[in-house]
Amino acid sequence: MGIKVEQVLHMVGGAGETSYATNSRLQEKTIYRTKPILDNAIEEIYRTLLPERLVVADLGCSSGPNTFLVVSEVLGVVGELRRRLEQKPPEIQFFLNDLPGNDFNNVFRSLERYGKKIEEEKGELLVPYYVVGVPGSFYGRLFPCTSVHFFHSSYCLMWLSQVPQALESDRGVPLNKGNIYITETSPPQVVEAYQEQYRRDFSSFLKSRYAELSVGGGMVLTFLGRKKQHPAMGDLSLLWGLLAEALNSMASEGVVVEEKVDSFNLPFYGPSMQEVKSVIHDEGLFDLDQAQMLESNWDPFDDSEDDLVFDNVANGKNVARYIRAVIEPLIAHQFGDAILDELFLRYADNVSKHCLKAKTKFTILVIGLKRKD
Amino acid sequence: MGIKVEQVLHMVGGAGETSYATNSRLQEKTIYRTKPILDNAIEEIYRTLLPERLVVADLGCSSGPNTFLVVSEVLGVVGELRRRLEQKPPEIQFFLNDLPGNDFNNVFRSLERYGKKIEEEKGELLVPYYVVGVPGSFYGRLFPCTSVHFFHSSYCLMWLSQVPQALESDRGVPLNKGNIYITETSPPQVVEAYQEQYRRDFSSFLKSRYAELSVGGGMVLTFLGRKKQHPAMGDLSLLWGLLAEALNSMASEGVVVEEKVDSFNLPFYGPSMQEVKSVIHDEGLFDLDQAQMLESNWDPFDDSEDDLVFDNVANGKNVARYIRAVIEPLIAHQFGDAILDELFLRYADNVSKHCLKAKTKFTILVIGLKRKD
Repeated sequence: MGIKVEQVLHMVGGAGETSYATNSRLQEKTIYRTKPILDNAIEEIYRTLLPERLVVADLGCSSGPNTFLVVSEVLGVVGELRRRLEQKPPEIQFFLNDLPGNDFNNVFRSLERYGKKIEEEKGELLVPYYVVGVPGSFYGRLFPCTSVHFFHSSYCLMWLSQVPQALESDRGVPLNKGNIYITETSPPQVVEAYQEQYRRDFSSFLKSRYAELSVGGGMVLTFLGRKKQHPAMGDLSLLWGLLAEALNSMASEGVVVEEKVDSFNLPFYGPSMQEVKSVIHDEGLFDLDQAQMLESNWDPFDDSEDDLVFDNVANGKNVARYIRAVIEPLIAHQFGDAILDELFLRYADNVSKHCLKAKTKFTILVIGLKRKD
Repeated sequence: MGIKVEQVLHMVGGAGETSYATNSRLQEKTIYRTKPILDNAIEEIYRTLLPERLVVADLGCSSGPNTFLVVSEVLGVVGELRRRLEQKPPEIQFFLNDLPGNDFNNVFRSLERYGKKIEEEKGELLVPYYVVGVPGSFYGRLFPCTSVHFFHSSYCLMWLSQVPQALESDRGVPLNKGNIYITETSPPQVVEAYQEQYRRDFSSFLKSRYAELSVGGGMVLTFLGRKKQHPAMGDLSLLWGLLAEALNSMASEGVVVEEKVDSFNLPFYGPSMQEVKSVIHDEGLFDLDQAQMLESNWDPFDDSEDDLVFDNVANGKNVARYIRAVIEPLIAHQFGDAILDELFLRYADNVSKHCLKAKTKFTILVIGLKRKD
């Protein structure tokens, strides 16, 4: 009966060629683009509360260089602001959270190196800070009541707490055969099951964070979503569709067991801004301060802003590499390690063929929330 | 110039045969024996402060079953006490600290399993709790000011922050040739260098903890020490002397480079109670609430309380196994991996020969400290 996401989902650890740390440029670019929103939120919280100890939590910190980008950014904003306001330097406590399968050892062992870099960058504006790791799912409670001032999360909230349970019939027959996510051929029950799981998960997330935030606290959340109304429309459906296609071709050749493809579905959902707003509204715990939509090329190394495709083969390879860093443990859990290289070769090929047709883009939702008093 | 302890010192990770997790019975037994002191300290802090959120830090938590023993114990004491006092359940936040080389991944991945066990044991008395990991040396600051109520540390404070620098002459000649710790053949400068390093480290420890403890807070610290006045006397000098003997015999056969043995010294010091008290007195930050001395057989599987040796060969093997789990990374850093098996075979042999002569015991110091207001 489905996978235990908490035990299986994690980015590829270490710092090797296929690791997440080496393949997270897409996520890095987005953090840079959301900087103004992050900066404003931190500024406002610090300015309003002027706490002696500021507590900041990054939910879904993963491992690698991005993990410390947010730490560095927050330190910069607070350091500069406390100087302007002529305040005594506060102490900042950073809680880095991810699922227990995350490579926290890698994060902790690189702490000293990043610490030196941050020290050099900030110079005299550096305020004392402390970094700790928090293992656990952000769909439940992670911190004591009112103990955190600010939550940040980037590229995580599109991961569900579990694969929706209603993706098979009462008699255990898979309903989303040949698919691993919502596509145009997915039956309505499948779409509803995903939507319902998203609604439940995001609602738990909001309730937990509300309990944990101190008065005056807030969050900035960035995640993949979609522009179109129907979940089967848009880039995510296509992205995973191309991976399903690679799996199906391997199944038809007998390299992969067909039943394993039929019963495999991603614990993933890219919501529309309307869906996001609707959950926030229904919970009634937060004011929506910011709601922005960004676009990003599939290929993390393609920084162009137009719709021209320069090198579709490179595009395919680059996309396959970072999707692999994100999803390898889930695939290996279902199909075994042996298929990985072949699968992602085929996937790269499918993506590059698609890129000849159109330059599809990710839709990234960025929301800023303030805790209601 | 000496090793960087923060990067090299850590217990053997994972859960395999030679791991610390599998070889930590000695440490486990001591935690059970110090329970009354731990329980009293926690009781008093909780009863006095009745905090809604109790913050407890375990310094040098390592990885393995012992890591959760303290969590479980604190939860038990507070759960029972809050029921007797008819208080609303507090939330407890546990900070598990160790050096960045510790296997935190192993700790975090076993959290769910231990969590279930703790839940079953405590039943309705269970109070909500949150566990996080803190990488870093406890000889410096780890937490924001006044943010912790209680510190616990077991079997860690005999590790120094570094190998004393004055263990070689001005011209770089090793002064403690053939030894890896203080023995009767160590020159006075070596003894002084170790004592000075201990004094400086323990003093930094006390200053850091004082800053981090909230008013009314305290600590219980358990560590290896010695009964006799002179550092070259007693079991620790002997324990490491037998390991040095194994290294020297390998050097004389050319299996190990002699210079590497001459320049190798442990970042370790077992203080006398008098030395401990003297640093606490000089710092003037804490009241000494408890000062006890326990004894423990070298062999963690020998639970007898007399001076009879039953199976000296088994004793030798058992001691070698757990000393290896503790010291393997330091040895491997200096001499390479290749010598490990042979070295610990010889060491086991030396220990078993020694056991024929006398049943030497560890001296364990347990101190309880209260923060002065």
